[in-house]
Amino acid sequence: MAVNTERITGVLSPVVTPFTADLSPDLERLVKQCRWLITHGVGLAIFGTTSEGNSLAVDEKIELLDRLVSCDVDPSRMMPGTGCSALTDTVRLTAHATKLGCAGVLMLPPFYYKGVSDEGLFRSFAEVIERVGESRLRIYLYNIPPVSQVAITVPLIERLLKAYPDTVAGVKDSSGDWDNTRSYLDNFAAEGFDVFPGSETFLLQCMRQGGAGCISATANVNPGPIARLFATWQSADADTQQLRLNEVRNIFAKYPMIPALKAAIAHYSRDGAWGNLRPPLVELTREQVDSLISELDGVGFGMPQPEERRFVS
Amino acid sequence: MAVNTERITGVLSPVVTPFTADLSPDLERLVKQCRWLITHGVGLAIFGTTSEGNSLAVDEKIELLDRLVSCDVDPSRMMPGTGCSALTDTVRLTAHATKLGCAGVLMLPPFYYKGVSDEGLFRSFAEVIERVGESRLRIYLYNIPPVSQVAITVPLIERLLKAYPDTVAGVKDSSGDWDNTRSYLDNFAAEGFDVFPGSETFLLQCMRQGGAGCISATANVNPGPIARLFATWQSADADTQQLRLNEVRNIFAKYPMIPALKAAIAHYSRDGAWGNLRPPLVELTREQVDSLISELDGVGFGMPQPEERRFVS
Repeated sequence: MAVNTERITGVLSPVVTPFTADLSPDLERLVKQCRWLITHGVGLAIFGTTSEGNSLAVDEKIELLDRLVSCDVDPSRMMPGTGCSALTDTVRLTAHATKLGCAGVLMLPPFYYKGVSDEGLFRSFAEVIERVGESRLRIYLYNIPPVSQVAITVPLIERLLKAYPDTVAGVKDSSGDWDNTRSYLDNFAAEGFDVFPGSETFLLQCMRQGGAGCISATANVNPGPIARLFATWQSADADTQQLRLNEVRNIFAKYPMIPALKAAIAHYSRDGAWGNLRPPLVELTREQVDSLISELDGVGFGMPQPEERRFVS
Repeated sequence: MAVNTERITGVLSPVVTPFTADLSPDLERLVKQCRWLITHGVGLAIFGTTSEGNSLAVDEKIELLDRLVSCDVDPSRMMPGTGCSALTDTVRLTAHATKLGCAGVLMLPPFYYKGVSDEGLFRSFAEVIERVGESRLRIYLYNIPPVSQVAITVPLIERLLKAYPDTVAGVKDSSGDWDNTRSYLDNFAAEGFDVFPGSETFLLQCMRQGGAGCISATANVNPGPIARLFATWQSADADTQQLRLNEVRNIFAKYPMIPALKAAIAHYSRDGAWGNLRPPLVELTREQVDSLISELDGVGFGMPQPEERRFVS
């Protein structure tokens, strides 16, 4: 079992989960995608929103984690999503990921009940930390109100950091609201709390304000250029790089994101099986796929072509 | 294994789930509560929203179901909540409940992703029905947009009824919007689709328009009078009964509902352990409890006193 000594930073991707025709998780394609992302310098936030993580049972996630590790996908490059709506599920999955040596876990608040108090959320995270009881556990709080409808507030983080300064390591902010991301940076970045915006469109401004990187859906298809901006954000061409990243991101953002990412991977890797989604998500229409690909081709989108993708496998 | 021949109708309660001090489900108290509700003519919609059903892992729910049945709680009086965010969890729990002989299942749509299409929801329910593959399965769709944020629309029900007329048996409407409940009644009640509003405040008007009963949180504390209105809704004093039910319901509605129900049960049964909640829910403050009980006492609230509750155990 590995032990984390350094925190994971940089660019991570909530890795899309491929499914076979019968909607089972497709390990072979997932391993390929993970290896390919690592080759491009991108870490693995498996079981995120983009991964259809909450369309997978905890047993399925535990099996996938085990099998990824047994296929030599490095757990120290992983930050699996482990926040479920049931406390006991969150504890089980978090404990398992930690034992496997994952760099950290990305933890949604319990997301079924709405209008819950910071006190209730504090107790929820605290209970998970106490029950897992592992000093090497690193939790990245996951703020994604457009989906979870349950926000991670500054006072909540303050309280968690006070109680568990070594465990509560950072936040992923998928609010899409830079002011919110900045409030996390302003309040906590100086004390070593790692802030990751949920889109590379905020990567450069986040790095300039003391952020740790980003965790972005589109890193599934555009990993190299996003990782390059992280590595060279202090270089003269950083703003130009950022504009180029935005161009690609903005095309994907016109479509339902998860089906669009899978459609793009299916197209560029000439592997139609990548298009499968678990309900309630639905694939793009033929017209949407054509329009997406034509827009991507129109900006000379640099997603590695099939040859390169095959090489990585 | 029992086989359903008749559909379950009338008043059901999403049974509150008692927890021990370490937040494990408390089987003994749950059995007591279930028996007490059945004695008062109320069916058991265990694992509903009020049951903190989504704060329980699927394994915990399966074990509780098995143990309730082994304690002779009648599955033909049960409509467990089985809709999870992961397809595979919903299939597993639904199949188990059906095999045990439950009258039906109350099925949330997958509730993590938001803004999903009716096509995606149709596929989700259809996939569950096909995978469970039991002719005796009866599904009650669960519409609770204030919590799930995913609505069950009339066109979706139409499509499901056309594809699975024997399986899709009804709906629980916790929208709190009578116009929405009436749209279900107007469109589907005549063909034998059972509409249950999510509060007894709509019970009388629902029965007058061809509804099937109600599934209500406050049936946990006021079961007898609610069941009596269902049984006698055509009697001369029905409107008076309804007003009396509303009086009690409206008191509970001033507080966070689940903690308030547990506080009332704890108070009237003199059993403080009933107050335990799983995070992210939080108990009422002492002041809230005092005010709740004083308001209930003020209207001569008829929740059976400890003696009677003890008798049932």
